[in-house]
Amino acid sequence: MTDPLAPGSVIGILGGGQLGRMLSVAAARLGYRTHIFEPGAAPAAHVAEMVTTAGYDDLDALKAFAEQVDVITYEFENIPTEALDALEPVRAIHPNRRALAVSQDRMIEKAFLSDLGLRTAPFAAVDDEMDLSEAIAAIGLPAILKTRRFGYDGKGQARIAEPEDASSALAEMNSAPAVLEGFIRFEREISVIAARGANGDVACFDPGENVHRDGILRTTTVPAAIDAELTAAAKDLAAQVLEKLNYVGVMGVELFVTEEGLVVNEIAPRVHNSGHWTQNGCTVDQFEQHVRAIAGWPLGDGSRYADVQMENLIGEDLLRIPEIAREPGAAIHLYGKGEVRAGRKLGHVNRVIQ
Amino acid sequence: MTDPLAPGSVIGILGGGQLGRMLSVAAARLGYRTHIFEPGAAPAAHVAEMVTTAGYDDLDALKAFAEQVDVITYEFENIPTEALDALEPVRAIHPNRRALAVSQDRMIEKAFLSDLGLRTAPFAAVDDEMDLSEAIAAIGLPAILKTRRFGYDGKGQARIAEPEDASSALAEMNSAPAVLEGFIRFEREISVIAARGANGDVACFDPGENVHRDGILRTTTVPAAIDAELTAAAKDLAAQVLEKLNYVGVMGVELFVTEEGLVVNEIAPRVHNSGHWTQNGCTVDQFEQHVRAIAGWPLGDGSRYADVQMENLIGEDLLRIPEIAREPGAAIHLYGKGEVRAGRKLGHVNRVIQ
Repeated sequence: MTDPLAPGSVIGILGGGQLGRMLSVAAARLGYRTHIFEPGAAPAAHVAEMVTTAGYDDLDALKAFAEQVDVITYEFENIPTEALDALEPVRAIHPNRRALAVSQDRMIEKAFLSDLGLRTAPFAAVDDEMDLSEAIAAIGLPAILKTRRFGYDGKGQARIAEPEDASSALAEMNSAPAVLEGFIRFEREISVIAARGANGDVACFDPGENVHRDGILRTTTVPAAIDAELTAAAKDLAAQVLEKLNYVGVMGVELFVTEEGLVVNEIAPRVHNSGHWTQNGCTVDQFEQHVRAIAGWPLGDGSRYADVQMENLIGEDLLRIPEIAREPGAAIHLYGKGEVRAGRKLGHVNRVIQ
Repeated sequence: MTDPLAPGSVIGILGGGQLGRMLSVAAARLGYRTHIFEPGAAPAAHVAEMVTTAGYDDLDALKAFAEQVDVITYEFENIPTEALDALEPVRAIHPNRRALAVSQDRMIEKAFLSDLGLRTAPFAAVDDEMDLSEAIAAIGLPAILKTRRFGYDGKGQARIAEPEDASSALAEMNSAPAVLEGFIRFEREISVIAARGANGDVACFDPGENVHRDGILRTTTVPAAIDAELTAAAKDLAAQVLEKLNYVGVMGVELFVTEEGLVVNEIAPRVHNSGHWTQNGCTVDQFEQHVRAIAGWPLGDGSRYADVQMENLIGEDLLRIPEIAREPGAAIHLYGKGEVRAGRKLGHVNRVIQ
């Protein structure tokens, strides 16, 4: 194993949203400085030493950024391949490109998970109307049509309940390659925030139980209402994924709990919204765990010492801050985003349950 | 009560050391941006949006800084009066100047505390040899001669055990006005981190028990080994001080526990090293509590949900990081200071005790 990144080194972070912001704070806590690369407004820059405002197609800016940092990580998986091609010859990127390639494309992701022997929703690639009618015949309805790439928070998705919904769903894909996913009847959705260190150690936080509304995560509650056996199975599954990818860093693994066992919904090669509860229930949270991994530190103690419910503050939820500020046990985390917009994640609150 | 500071407002922080750094992170968590004013190296700037590098005698820089921020606070009490005179006409400063005036001068501080009916060490002003011999006659030996102003971490102090130590002790003061303090026989030193909101509410964290070495705080442990009655008395005392000063913000109150009750050692009108444990034992830590107060928020829930021992990492203690990084329950906080120097505070570790 190589030595940890020297104190005072600079961690480059692609993406300047709330995840980059909380990563930057964690990096500082371990004695590192950070440099944010972000094309748009960057709330992460409020807590970073340096910021580059440039597009992912600005190869000169990317190269200059890479030269100014000691290691590169990212807060989102949809980084264009050309940008990675510009960065990687200059500095190491963690998690690695294999993890990005797998998670950037729902077809590749599902094929990867299936190859590992893990269960996913039934799926089929859909490029045109003929693919779609074949996929519907094979998978059945209801089903969900999703773009293969660039989907997040329920965007790029269309539900097909009846055969006559098919053509409008396909139109919503805007000619982008898509995948039809069979509908999973699940009891609950959980996620495992898993970390793998540079030395190959794996550590998982306790699974949280997620509730979504309109395709956006609303709450994560730990512990999830699952037994010890299922908890262990969920962590084992996540560890398998990390090891297969030779992964370094934190990954979010979303799982459905079904009558037939665990089904993988999706994996995200980064810190994850459903892991925000770790900020107030663990000695080492998901952000520090990620920094530890990519900086070559040993993984930290992520054992849970409190029950927590995380609630996302979305759009006008922000108006409830004065009330939440008075609530005992409520830890508020705001993202410093200028504009309140419907459906926009503006903060979260972790409620510590004694 | 006025409205809270609007989201996205800028909090100006005088001083760019570790306290300013942790204040800056707390401010960001509540949706604020920060601007650090610091003459020297500023590790706080790693997690702040803006930084002004200028001296406290640069009145133009101070004025420009004040105009760019919405409220001013500070991480240390030794701000020159001239600097305050330049800042205050432009923006509000919290905590207020009365609190600064009292804590900047040990004589004024002791007189203030005595007027409140609180016990302090016996004390007498010492400007020259005659004062000193009179003070020794009145107070007795052993005693400690301290500069009235600008002392910290044991600096500007000389112990007088025998009468013949007097002249060398006085020489150490470098002609600065001084104060002789009688020696207090104490069972333990505790400190109360107390906060007062803009609405007059007062909240105190549980008292921590401090151990010093070479004049520098080494550890703070909560809970302190004191009974409920003494805990209540310590909190009441701190509340009295805050109310008398019409204080807004967090204050550190150091107390000796003696056979005759509580004796006030000193007060610091800012977040305090002995309050760092709150980062890992409370939903709202001392840094956020301070930001809440100066931004006009309600005070947060500072109740303790874990036992914690905070250990300062001083000088070569930093070499123990690889070992501490492997310790279960250890939360590491490094300050991003470039140079490892003996006696320099470089970080701390909070050990959560289950």
